[in-house]
Amino acid sequence: MSQNTLQVSIVGGSGYAGGELLRLLLLHPGVRVRQVTSDRCAGQPLALVHPNLRGLTSLNFVRVEELESCDLLFLALPNGESMKSMDLWTAKSECLIDLGADFRLQSPEAWAAWYGSPHAAPQWLPRFVYGVPEINHDRIRRARYVAGPGCEAIVSLLCLYPLVMAGVIKSKPIIIDAKMGSSQAGHRPSEASHHPERAGVVRSYKPTGHRHAAEIEQMLQENGADLSVHISATAVEMVRGILVTIQTFCLDEAAGDREIWPVFRSAYEGKPFIRLVKQRQGLYRYPEPKILQGTNFCEIGFEKEARSDRLVILGAIDNLVKGTAGNAVQCLNLMCGFPETLGLEFPGLHPV
Amino acid sequence: MSQNTLQVSIVGGSGYAGGELLRLLLLHPGVRVRQVTSDRCAGQPLALVHPNLRGLTSLNFVRVEELESCDLLFLALPNGESMKSMDLWTAKSECLIDLGADFRLQSPEAWAAWYGSPHAAPQWLPRFVYGVPEINHDRIRRARYVAGPGCEAIVSLLCLYPLVMAGVIKSKPIIIDAKMGSSQAGHRPSEASHHPERAGVVRSYKPTGHRHAAEIEQMLQENGADLSVHISATAVEMVRGILVTIQTFCLDEAAGDREIWPVFRSAYEGKPFIRLVKQRQGLYRYPEPKILQGTNFCEIGFEKEARSDRLVILGAIDNLVKGTAGNAVQCLNLMCGFPETLGLEFPGLHPV
Amino acid sequence: MSQNTLQVSIVGGSGYAGGELLRLLLLHPGVRVRQVTSDRCAGQPLALVHPNLRGLTSLNFVRVEELESCDLLFLALPNGESMKSMDLWTAKSECLIDLGADFRLQSPEAWAAWYGSPHAAPQWLPRFVYGVPEINHDRIRRARYVAGPGCEAIVSLLCLYPLVMAGVIKSKPIIIDAKMGSSQAGHRPSEASHHPERAGVVRSYKPTGHRHAAEIEQMLQENGADLSVHISATAVEMVRGILVTIQTFCLDEAAGDREIWPVFRSAYEGKPFIRLVKQRQGLYRYPEPKILQGTNFCEIGFEKEARSDRLVILGAIDNLVKGTAGNAVQCLNLMCGFPETLGLEFPGLHPV
Amino acid sequence: MSQNTLQVSIVGGSGYAGGELLRLLLLHPGVRVRQVTSDRCAGQPLALVHPNLRGLTSLNFVRVEELESCDLLFLALPNGESMKSMDLWTAKSECLIDLGADFRLQSPEAWAAWYGSPHAAPQWLPRFVYGVPEINHDRIRRARYVAGPGCEAIVSLLCLYPLVMAGVIKSKPIIIDAKMGSSQAGHRPSEASHHPERAGVVRSYKPTGHRHAAEIEQMLQENGADLSVHISATAVEMVRGILVTIQTFCLDEAAGDREIWPVFRSAYEGKPFIRLVKQRQGLYRYPEPKILQGTNFCEIGFEKEARSDRLVILGAIDNLVKGTAGNAVQCLNLMCGFPETLGLEFPGLHPV
Repeated sequence: MSQNTLQVSIVGGSGYAGGELLRLLLLHPGVRVRQVTSDRCAGQPLALVHPNLRGLTSLNFVRVEELESCDLLFLALPNGESMKSMDLWTAKSECLIDLGADFRLQSPEAWAAWYGSPHAAPQWLPRFVYGVPEINHDRIRRARYVAGPGCEAIVSLLCLYPLVMAGVIKSKPIIIDAKMGSSQAGHRPSEASHHPERAGVVRSYKPTGHRHAAEIEQMLQENGADLSVHISATAVEMVRGILVTIQTFCLDEAAGDREIWPVFRSAYEGKPFIRLVKQRQGLYRYPEPKILQGTNFCEIGFEKEARSDRLVILGAIDNLVKGTAGNAVQCLNLMCGFPETLGLEFPGLHPV
Repeated sequence: MSQNTLQVSIVGGSGYAGGELLRLLLLHPGVRVRQVTSDRCAGQPLALVHPNLRGLTSLNFVRVEELESCDLLFLALPNGESMKSMDLWTAKSECLIDLGADFRLQSPEAWAAWYGSPHAAPQWLPRFVYGVPEINHDRIRRARYVAGPGCEAIVSLLCLYPLVMAGVIKSKPIIIDAKMGSSQAGHRPSEASHHPERAGVVRSYKPTGHRHAAEIEQMLQENGADLSVHISATAVEMVRGILVTIQTFCLDEAAGDREIWPVFRSAYEGKPFIRLVKQRQGLYRYPEPKILQGTNFCEIGFEKEARSDRLVILGAIDNLVKGTAGNAVQCLNLMCGFPETLGLEFPGLHPV
Repeated sequence: MSQNTLQVSIVGGSGYAGGELLRLLLLHPGVRVRQVTSDRCAGQPLALVHPNLRGLTSLNFVRVEELESCDLLFLALPNGESMKSMDLWTAKSECLIDLGADFRLQSPEAWAAWYGSPHAAPQWLPRFVYGVPEINHDRIRRARYVAGPGCEAIVSLLCLYPLVMAGVIKSKPIIIDAKMGSSQAGHRPSEASHHPERAGVVRSYKPTGHRHAAEIEQMLQENGADLSVHISATAVEMVRGILVTIQTFCLDEAAGDREIWPVFRSAYEGKPFIRLVKQRQGLYRYPEPKILQGTNFCEIGFEKEARSDRLVILGAIDNLVKGTAGNAVQCLNLMCGFPETLGLEFPGLHPV
Repeated sequence: MSQNTLQVSIVGGSGYAGGELLRLLLLHPGVRVRQVTSDRCAGQPLALVHPNLRGLTSLNFVRVEELESCDLLFLALPNGESMKSMDLWTAKSECLIDLGADFRLQSPEAWAAWYGSPHAAPQWLPRFVYGVPEINHDRIRRARYVAGPGCEAIVSLLCLYPLVMAGVIKSKPIIIDAKMGSSQAGHRPSEASHHPERAGVVRSYKPTGHRHAAEIEQMLQENGADLSVHISATAVEMVRGILVTIQTFCLDEAAGDREIWPVFRSAYEGKPFIRLVKQRQGLYRYPEPKILQGTNFCEIGFEKEARSDRLVILGAIDNLVKGTAGNAVQCLNLMCGFPETLGLEFPGLHPV
């Protein structure tokens, strides 16, 4: 693919992931946004729905029927929608990046078990690469089809993968306590998202059975680990951001910073979007989603308990950036030969 | 009316005003809540909709058709609904307290001008007393029908009335800048109330033309003042509460604390729910809605500008209590011969 | 002790726990607040520091040297301070309720290990009863000295105790993920509590090594359980409140709601401040600290994972009420023969 | 001055304005940050204080004594500090941009009246240009010394200036109700900024007498207008951002959108950071600081009251960007011949 301006379109661009993609792509020096579909908003200016895009674009939303050919197509649809129209998408574009869940799990059985319906395009599953650039870097570079990971999944995997691969962690249950902002539930109003009800909550909304566990287990198990992963998800007062507090147990109870630091350091050396955060001073000693808003960083930290084998790993991202749209642009950069950080340089705000 | 247990029912009890009435009435020692209607929630337990009532009551919502006789009926309906069924309400109960706007304005023309439709029960207008106990104390004591004021209106009136009556303020425009919490917009979800959109806003939603100006002007003008009142309303990050910042101009530019304090003090001496707040020390030097959550207090403060005739008056309430339900219970106490503060003793939380 | 008005004083009444005690005691029908000490604020009116007490009391803070005799003395001092002056406190009052950590652990060695200094009054340790009324009801009724539990500890114990006693949970590590409001860190400003830094955080501040684990283990182990307890604490955007998400593993993987419900129900039958919350409908399906602000309730819920032995238990309280001051008043009620709920009837607000 | 890399230093770089300058300058393609002073933090890495700069710079803070020559020096000091060392600053750099208040007012008498102490460097006052690029564009381009405006002042001036110049507004008092985020009070913790006290407030902190009125009046009066300006400032729950609600009165009561729109349009045509926002649709119909966080935009809107001569003007900015650091970089761009928007392209986030 040429490094000349890449023609990109987005299917389902009126939601929060679509809006965030647009924020990044409209300022990406190697990309031109060609079309953005939305059945709900067809005919309206993008900036009516995404007010931060005022002045950046004069595009209007189009219907999916109007979709023309492009170099790379982003799918930002509700779970289960992308898989229904694979012929259409692949007819329009050689490359796809799907932000939804449809092509994350590699077995149709796993899909059916976790999402409750048969997979509509199982033959496409093996063609998708699971889009974690820090782990699947080379596969993404060569990929035509990429499945963007779930937001809890990517931050948890970035925390766990190096330690699991290095054999630091026991084959005990891994428990992920995920604290989530409200944007994660999407742009559709509901009683649960009504401000007087949602403001200030610490609301346990998925104590067990969270689907992203399936992606995490798949990724760890396909690399040989025999681990089960359990998520408890809690909504907190925040619009953007995730913090995961991951409970693991070390094979070697005596393991300490001296053993664990090098595992993370060597895994993430040269990875531009990973920040290891474990400071003795300052206010931001551990990963903190607040200062990551708008950035593509994943912050990772940890603390080994002195009196036991427990190892707590902390990970933070902006769910709409490293958790969705920013990570997808990072995949685009790899797929299309751009520098990995192009268009993703925003360093974040402080205070905020 | 006997001071024995008063049988009270609520029409339209599934909204926020209804829920707050229930919180107060279920613990009111002189009252028994008999029925609560809600077409939307008929058959459901009250506590499913109002989770703070768990364990306090085993009542279920009923349909309005099931309404039985009672001693006092609260109407907590959308604007324009109460007036349509006055025959029904008055057949069921000798006394009514209407929390909506229907009977606040005394002329049907004013209603039509501000609410955009003809008044459906103009003959009832003169029978309602406007329910500000600190101003209309004796009229409320003798009333059978009370119209609860709008929440911006009551706090603004409590700030303005004494000064206007004392002739302190010029016949210039009075400007009320009202900062509002999200509960004021009611319990129905909308795009504007969706948490990711509503969180953290400072959103001007009614720069001009706010209807509560009509009530305030009516009340001041019927007492002889020739003043026009202008409101700008802004939604801020808060669920409960209003702060009004009122800009007025003094007849006597030299007027200062020595002239203004006595006006407020004599107007509100012995009024249990008015707190004059104007401190030199401490963190809460002026009225602050945050610490009034759940209370029936109205805090009032002021600052005269040294270099001009400008006088800024500040007022704070909880919109659901002194702004709606608590004030209605205070009216009930007056109407029914209870001590004015009965059931309204909650002092508020700090910090919160 | 007579049920006539109880003369009560507070040592260290200018902090948040002291303020909350005052809110409850000043309206408690069986109590008269006699003196409130604060070295920092001596001479100032209580209401300058606790603005919600305006109009409720005309007391000023006094120095500890001015302390007179009373019937019951509350100690609301920083950890390590109460133990230094036991002769003074016991000379002034027959009954003590200490809100700090000094007398929670029963062995001086445990104190030294967790708090880093030798215990200054080890001879007093066996005389204190650990103040969880739902567990130590009869011991508190007979006690003269009560140690109020830590706020994470009490909510976690109320979640765990019945299941542990009933033998439902395996001898595996128990992991408590505690989400905390900012009031828990006390009233002293710091860089970490500075609003621009603290607002909107999801800040891991104690991933391992939390001291409240010691209390919880002590309580479970003295009842024969062989369990280790691990806490990770995270500060979230909230002033009051705690939610604990507790990860446990069932002895019987097949255990479900049918086995677990009865354990909680029989343990907490007739306990006025425990609310079991596990609903299929509504917005508040699990414990939620938001609607508990100002109340003495502890909400408990749970979810058993279908595909494993994992059992997630959820608990919510207001850290300043059931977590500190309200629980202490509940202990006072038991010690002094008042009805257990006296002065603690506030049901909480919704929405808020 | 050459358009080659500009060597820039910052005096007082550990506060919030300094941090925001660094965020912008470290990614500005025409600038190299050479030194950053801070007496408080000398020797520490910048990123310890400004955690969003991790990985962007390896600079440490230096003492002011270590300051070397540079092309342009930013002064980000507390009010009253810059003026004391003008010889030092001008010895180090040909160009100065002062973010503080010291050189905003052109008369030493005005300084003394508003800031309460004699001006220490009155001879420098006439050499400073008041830095509002949309108004003083050409003077800034030719300036060596620029005084950055106060944050309430710049947003209010951008709202008022076109209308005042066009003679739309009467010589009546202008009233500015400013809603402010917590970052405006700086990085130093205090009791008032302590999270449990500051969270969720709507706190009137400067009802009258706000100093920024002096700047606004000066700017309007030096252009011939005879107007007095009055500010009431209220702290709301937000870290970054200002919304001003400005009350004015039109000379021509019949003036409407048709008369007012063209005044704004012609004043701000081609001005890259002004966004006129007055929509009939969508959620963001008027200026809203929430979506401006991190951006250099100033949003302006208005509503003329139908029944009177009242005209409400609304303005929103990020106080740390268009209100301080971003505006200063915009001035740098003008002074140094860079494109006006260089380094200021961030479009803001939605939702957030």
